[in-house]
Amino acid sequence: MEFIKSTKNNRVKDWKKLTTKKGHQKDRAYLLDGWHLVKEAIAAEAPVVTLIGTGDQLAEHGELLPEGVETVEISLEVANYLGDTVTPQGIFAVVRIEPATLTNAKAAEGVWLFLDHVQDPGNIGTMVRTADAAGLTGVVFGRGTASQYTPKVLRAMQGSQFHVQIVEADLHEWIPAFTNRQLPVYGTKLDPQAKSYRDVSPMDNGAIVMGNEGNGMADDLLAQTTLNLYIPIKGEAESLNVAVAAGIMMFQLVQ
Amino acid sequence: MEFIKSTKNNRVKDWKKLTTKKGHQKDRAYLLDGWHLVKEAIAAEAPVVTLIGTGDQLAEHGELLPEGVETVEISLEVANYLGDTVTPQGIFAVVRIEPATLTNAKAAEGVWLFLDHVQDPGNIGTMVRTADAAGLTGVVFGRGTASQYTPKVLRAMQGSQFHVQIVEADLHEWIPAFTNRQLPVYGTKLDPQAKSYRDVSPMDNGAIVMGNEGNGMADDLLAQTTLNLYIPIKGEAESLNVAVAAGIMMFQLVQ
Repeated sequence: MEFIKSTKNNRVKDWKKLTTKKGHQKDRAYLLDGWHLVKEAIAAEAPVVTLIGTGDQLAEHGELLPEGVETVEISLEVANYLGDTVTPQGIFAVVRIEPATLTNAKAAEGVWLFLDHVQDPGNIGTMVRTADAAGLTGVVFGRGTASQYTPKVLRAMQGSQFHVQIVEADLHEWIPAFTNRQLPVYGTKLDPQAKSYRDVSPMDNGAIVMGNEGNGMADDLLAQTTLNLYIPIKGEAESLNVAVAAGIMMFQLVQ
Repeated sequence: MEFIKSTKNNRVKDWKKLTTKKGHQKDRAYLLDGWHLVKEAIAAEAPVVTLIGTGDQLAEHGELLPEGVETVEISLEVANYLGDTVTPQGIFAVVRIEPATLTNAKAAEGVWLFLDHVQDPGNIGTMVRTADAAGLTGVVFGRGTASQYTPKVLRAMQGSQFHVQIVEADLHEWIPAFTNRQLPVYGTKLDPQAKSYRDVSPMDNGAIVMGNEGNGMADDLLAQTTLNLYIPIKGEAESLNVAVAAGIMMFQLVQ
């Protein structure tokens, strides 16, 4: 097994680049950090190209490592350099980004979450995790939404990207593709005049759209939906956190 | 008006200490960062002792400053030193921590959120903000829950601490104080055998308990509740983020 000690090694530099958007585009691969995510990737038969770990970690969890995948041992120093957190566990996987999924807006079934310009990686990841828990089919990362392969989004998704479909696409195409098939698309609007989410029946097929943390959904998308919903605020808070609002909507509309 | 240029000034050092637990205990005061929170404090007539701002900020928002409160101008360098974020706005307030509220477990009315060993400041603050939006009366920070006066909790609460009551207390006293009065206390348990939160009627008085991110609620507290509830997970996610789960519970049980 190859052993890499120095952070100046070229392979290490290449792996580090897989935590950036530029690296994702150039090498069509991303880096997973930590056992929970690496195990989820292996269980989901994701295209793991290389497993990277400290000697301790590889020895301790040897039975988890899939056969036929290149495994590289690294020093603690390299682990700390590659990791996104203060104390990384010391296990990483390089996963190939596969050509865009075949999921097509005109054929998509089940309930989907559409994200319009959502920016905070923690919010995005938490919404994917919640969509998985609520039994949704997939999440569309619309324009202006942070990339699914950045370390903070990957961490917050907690592996749910292997359980629901993730699509990067233009909501200007996905919304009409649903409404044209008579599938409801519910936008969200911070407007007490909008319809309460409690007055809508659960659905088997359709979509919920969540907007930007500060500005909400874009006006032109609000105009394309079947209906725009509001979560009634009783106290004096001005708004809800977008991931909390998405959770409330998803667990109400998918039952 | 006093002008302070250097981060080595003793008052600046004292203010910085007001972002730590030690400082809160010693000086019985905490530091708010940013206009949104400072405005909320002024509007709520919180005991603001000193307003601290850069020349630009004080000039631009002079009409917001309350009369009779000491105001100190600081340099940008001091603002960056005091601020918790990468680019602080340059406005701060020192707020006195008042003697414990009179709210007493045996007389508390309305719906309360009880937090048991919740650790992430973002989660805690988001839950207070959601409790405010859902119309709850207050939040009890039980044992092991991060302090309400730390910068990250203050930022995530977005001022909702001025709209709901915040109490630091022992849940071993608060839970029986409610159940003895026949008010329901709903614990939360990651156990498909527990009762679904959807099968419980909304309440006017009572409490919802959320537990630690990794370990959930303590067993001895679970044994003291009226009933323990579960949010049914349909997909493959192992759990929900605690703030998302709290939001779903609060908006279901308070209507």
